[in-house]
Amino acid sequence: MREDAKTPQRHADRMAKKQKIMQERIARAQNSQGVLLVLTGPGKGKSSSAFGMAARALGHDMKVGVVQFIKGAFKTGEERFFRAQPLVDYHVMGEGYTWDTQDRERDVAAAKAAWAEARRMLRDPDYKLVVLDELNIALRYEYLDLDTVLDDLQDRPEMQHVVVTGRYAPKPLIELADTVTEMKVVKHAFKDLGVKAQKGIEL
Amino acid sequence: MREDAKTPQRHADRMAKKQKIMQERIARAQNSQGVLLVLTGPGKGKSSSAFGMAARALGHDMKVGVVQFIKGAFKTGEERFFRAQPLVDYHVMGEGYTWDTQDRERDVAAAKAAWAEARRMLRDPDYKLVVLDELNIALRYEYLDLDTVLDDLQDRPEMQHVVVTGRYAPKPLIELADTVTEMKVVKHAFKDLGVKAQKGIEL
Repeated sequence: MREDAKTPQRHADRMAKKQKIMQERIARAQNSQGVLLVLTGPGKGKSSSAFGMAARALGHDMKVGVVQFIKGAFKTGEERFFRAQPLVDYHVMGEGYTWDTQDRERDVAAAKAAWAEARRMLRDPDYKLVVLDELNIALRYEYLDLDTVLDDLQDRPEMQHVVVTGRYAPKPLIELADTVTEMKVVKHAFKDLGVKAQKGIEL
Repeated sequence: MREDAKTPQRHADRMAKKQKIMQERIARAQNSQGVLLVLTGPGKGKSSSAFGMAARALGHDMKVGVVQFIKGAFKTGEERFFRAQPLVDYHVMGEGYTWDTQDRERDVAAAKAAWAEARRMLRDPDYKLVVLDELNIALRYEYLDLDTVLDDLQDRPEMQHVVVTGRYAPKPLIELADTVTEMKVVKHAFKDLGVKAQKGIEL
């Protein structure tokens, strides 16, 4: 590709082929339904991606629900921004990071209360997109019952989109999901180089 | 982990250890500087993630610049939403998808004009975050000179953050970047199942 990209005819041929593939792919895609997306893996960008999808949905005047399953200093920018949007219903789990609380019962109670908010959204077709941020962490620590979560996700309104984020997505959730992306770390300034977490990027 | 997560003492010990690691990591991270992030790979969520970071930055009242290096129907939600934000300066490359135009010279001219906008932002410290959406595609097709792009990125104001998205990030850009995430496809509804691209999620 790099060698012949500057030859106009070869370039035009390749682009024509690509156009045909794209058109065929779009023609084949007939189903219209709510999509369950899972964003997992250790790399940066899982929650950001979910919040970017929220922004996109707002650009289509869709009502968006957000439940953050881990509260902490790391999402203040998103929280402030999205709470100010009239079409967004934003809930944050009532307790701090689990590694700050060291109290399992309190964490379980907080996660369950957050799930009650999520369930309310998952039963209301007015919510066109529901973001369940860091839900995978609550599942990983077994703060929530996986089967209950999967049932509620599956029973949601047909046209409702859901985005679940967090490392360690459990296998049954991956199986239930329509689209799953794993974020892989290639390089990380914060970890590798000791660069302080940056407001507006990391915070 | 899954076996003993329910034993309160083991859980508390593990969380205490995690807390200590987090505190040490934060203490070590002294440098404060603009970060160059690259989001690449074939998985979903690269642009969404960049736009989520834009939302986060806006939550901190930071001025944000966006240049989209590929125009198309696929980013209408973001464009509509972010254009309405007073702190956002949003530019879209003047031509359609390259595989629709099949005219290399026109594509090169459009990419160069878009880079001129990007360069203006990269020279202005008022922009706290600059999103260069799908820049990697313009580099991949050699619509832009890689060295020029890398020089402009490196010469930007010290505290300015930049996020570059798109498949096929070139190796020299990965080397220059502080943080690089590769999005890997685990599953894709649109491609695998023939589900139509969904407004508010994919569009």
